[in-house]
Amino acid sequence: MNSNVPDRRGFLKKSAALAGLAVGAIPFAKGTAHAADNPLPDDPTIEDLSYGARSRFETTYRVHSVGALNANGLRNLTPLQDTMGVITPAALHFLVLREQHLPNIDPREHTLLIHGMVDRPLIFTMEELKRFPSVSRIHFLECTGNSGLMHYKSYLADKKRSPDLTKEMHIIQALHGRTSCSEWTGVPLSLLLQEAGVQKGAKWIVAEGNDSEHHAKSMPLEKCLDDVIVAYGQNGEALRREQGYPLRLIVPGWQGVNNVKYLRNIKVVDHPYYFQSETSAYTNLRPDGKATIYESQVGPKSLITFPCDAHHLKGPGYYQITGLAWCGRGAISRVEVSTDNGATWKDAVLQTPVFNKAHTRFRFDWTWNGSETVIMSRCTNEFGDIQPTMLELAQLWGNNREPHLSGDAVERFWEGANISEFLNNPIQLWKVGQDGSVSDALYSTFNVKV
Amino acid sequence: MNSNVPDRRGFLKKSAALAGLAVGAIPFAKGTAHAADNPLPDDPTIEDLSYGARSRFETTYRVHSVGALNANGLRNLTPLQDTMGVITPAALHFLVLREQHLPNIDPREHTLLIHGMVDRPLIFTMEELKRFPSVSRIHFLECTGNSGLMHYKSYLADKKRSPDLTKEMHIIQALHGRTSCSEWTGVPLSLLLQEAGVQKGAKWIVAEGNDSEHHAKSMPLEKCLDDVIVAYGQNGEALRREQGYPLRLIVPGWQGVNNVKYLRNIKVVDHPYYFQSETSAYTNLRPDGKATIYESQVGPKSLITFPCDAHHLKGPGYYQITGLAWCGRGAISRVEVSTDNGATWKDAVLQTPVFNKAHTRFRFDWTWNGSETVIMSRCTNEFGDIQPTMLELAQLWGNNREPHLSGDAVERFWEGANISEFLNNPIQLWKVGQDGSVSDALYSTFNVKV
Repeated sequence: MNSNVPDRRGFLKKSAALAGLAVGAIPFAKGTAHAADNPLPDDPTIEDLSYGARSRFETTYRVHSVGALNANGLRNLTPLQDTMGVITPAALHFLVLREQHLPNIDPREHTLLIHGMVDRPLIFTMEELKRFPSVSRIHFLECTGNSGLMHYKSYLADKKRSPDLTKEMHIIQALHGRTSCSEWTGVPLSLLLQEAGVQKGAKWIVAEGNDSEHHAKSMPLEKCLDDVIVAYGQNGEALRREQGYPLRLIVPGWQGVNNVKYLRNIKVVDHPYYFQSETSAYTNLRPDGKATIYESQVGPKSLITFPCDAHHLKGPGYYQITGLAWCGRGAISRVEVSTDNGATWKDAVLQTPVFNKAHTRFRFDWTWNGSETVIMSRCTNEFGDIQPTMLELAQLWGNNREPHLSGDAVERFWEGANISEFLNNPIQLWKVGQDGSVSDALYSTFNVKV
Repeated sequence: MNSNVPDRRGFLKKSAALAGLAVGAIPFAKGTAHAADNPLPDDPTIEDLSYGARSRFETTYRVHSVGALNANGLRNLTPLQDTMGVITPAALHFLVLREQHLPNIDPREHTLLIHGMVDRPLIFTMEELKRFPSVSRIHFLECTGNSGLMHYKSYLADKKRSPDLTKEMHIIQALHGRTSCSEWTGVPLSLLLQEAGVQKGAKWIVAEGNDSEHHAKSMPLEKCLDDVIVAYGQNGEALRREQGYPLRLIVPGWQGVNNVKYLRNIKVVDHPYYFQSETSAYTNLRPDGKATIYESQVGPKSLITFPCDAHHLKGPGYYQITGLAWCGRGAISRVEVSTDNGATWKDAVLQTPVFNKAHTRFRFDWTWNGSETVIMSRCTNEFGDIQPTMLELAQLWGNNREPHLSGDAVERFWEGANISEFLNNPIQLWKVGQDGSVSDALYSTFNVKV
């Protein structure tokens, strides 16, 4: 793992020695505070500190997408360019909701019904659920459409329509910001199903939320008896409303759409229900004309979060390249980084311990010589599955993924129907210019028009 | 580890089956929202969601202590009774500051000076520090005085003086709530020292903060070259102001007082500086009359967080006992629980992976038969060090710790001088009454008067 540890001396030889207070461009005070971000008062009382808030000097935030695709619903995306370690603070966890109203549920009135092919239909209050044996596990959660070309179109549309609003919207966040990682706490779903007594012949469940849309999802019973959590806790406190307060499913390693929020109803059944959200939407069309219905596992994926298109390098010298890797199947075992457009690859150092089905932080020491180049990362999971290139994805899914897709073909994504693009895990390319600018070198190669 | 896993069926036989919506006492809406806790508006806009807030139904908070001991300074304590998993949310991380003003530092103007016995004195801006190789690690942070008898006196004083304010102040939080656990991100101090070039003969450092008190601490160079972090990140975002924004030391496993906040100055020296905060304060007097100066490692410690004196059991039946264990030396390897006042002990299940020098969540299945009893936990670290009883601590430190200390002896704690009580890791006893009430059965046995 440590193939890339240079001499530790002289990291910042040019800039560090007695640099004093004169600093140039500073990455702190970008953007303005938003309505719900109430930083601590300058002189907080001890009572102000009962529940903390961040410093007013910190203004990284979840950007929201207003492009046509996202006009209907709430979408706030994690600023991956500013993340550290593997835990995403709840206040910055991504949010995708297909409606404008965020449920505001009183936990005293919330219940979970388990029924269908069970011996004993049960209704649990929140208080009762909290009396069950609990578990806490660190897992990523990624929206099914994350990193999809359609979001690139939305990003371009946002940029065009609202240049002021979107001046700080970057590819890293607008396209990839639908992934976050938390320590989730709750009851194993297997325990609740055991309590209800699953009947012979049952093979699926249908889980339904208490949002106004009543989002529902079919899932195989086998997965539910494995590692699914009925979660009420996130990072040591109650779930946030954006995350399904007071109760949601955590389906480790599976597409976000499975992780039903505001969970109120689980029906045990013998067949999937073929909802719109699992047939025409959230599926890919294969070259053979069949759709990827009920293929939910997230493939091995990694992303350099520094430097990316939100950053600007201040001249040649040492930089620590860092990023995140994750996979829906097991743990990440290796991340390689190329700083020469894919010609050579070296191992990055992984932050340990590495969690199963969780964001894994990787770090890679790099001395930039000032020349234009392209940097990228690729990961491998413990089973040897390797993150693909966009071209390999195109070959997997057929022409719907062809990298130099024409405007018309992109338009077809747009229209929905069976032409979609989910389960996106291409290697992301960042171009570093001679001037230290960093820009996307993958999505910008597509002929996408808005 | 799994010696205590009962039949998984019938956990809540009496209460769960179709219990419907009629629920009795509910633990949610306790207390009232405080000034700085700005919950999301009922109908948040997408802009309100740029940086999230919790639901208005969640009101667990950091209590503050106003007892005589704590009159001077800010003290907000973590609600351990409501924690889940191992991560403490930054908004609920404990805060102990020996002054009333919380620094409000602009990171653009903050610098760290490294000087003294070094080849190259250096000043780093925050931007420069962030260019160094970074690490992220999950570690607990515990105030040196946590769980001390003096805080029991303060707790009693608070109860007496402000019965309204303190009606929800419990032993679990008021006495033990000075410990929290986060994923910290920053630069290894060893790298910065290497960059400056430590000179021969240097054996200590003195670190100083930019709070108005200019808190300073001597620490052996050996520890600094081992695992100390110059941290700017906590749980995936910038440090909170309460935690030293924009820069602090993280000294893994060592008493809180070492973890200098608002860090601005590190001097490399050949001897410790014997500050007041490391001689007359934050030290224990040994039976031989010598004080525990520069003994900073936190001993093995555990605590049942449910049930505790903040909870009330609703009759006999299944409960999952859960709590936290931690140690300043290595990882926790075992936690045992007794539910019969120490007569017998069984292994609890540890949440994995277990982190080095971090909170470790333990869980233990218990069926309460409705009789009065005392429950407790004790932990062992990977080197075989075992958490002591209060009596064993008294024998270690001498009569200053005698469990049935008279009022006068307690008064001496109060006066300070060399009679103090730090490094407290006694086994905490919780008495469960026949009526389901849970109360402290350790501190209440002392003859403490206010």
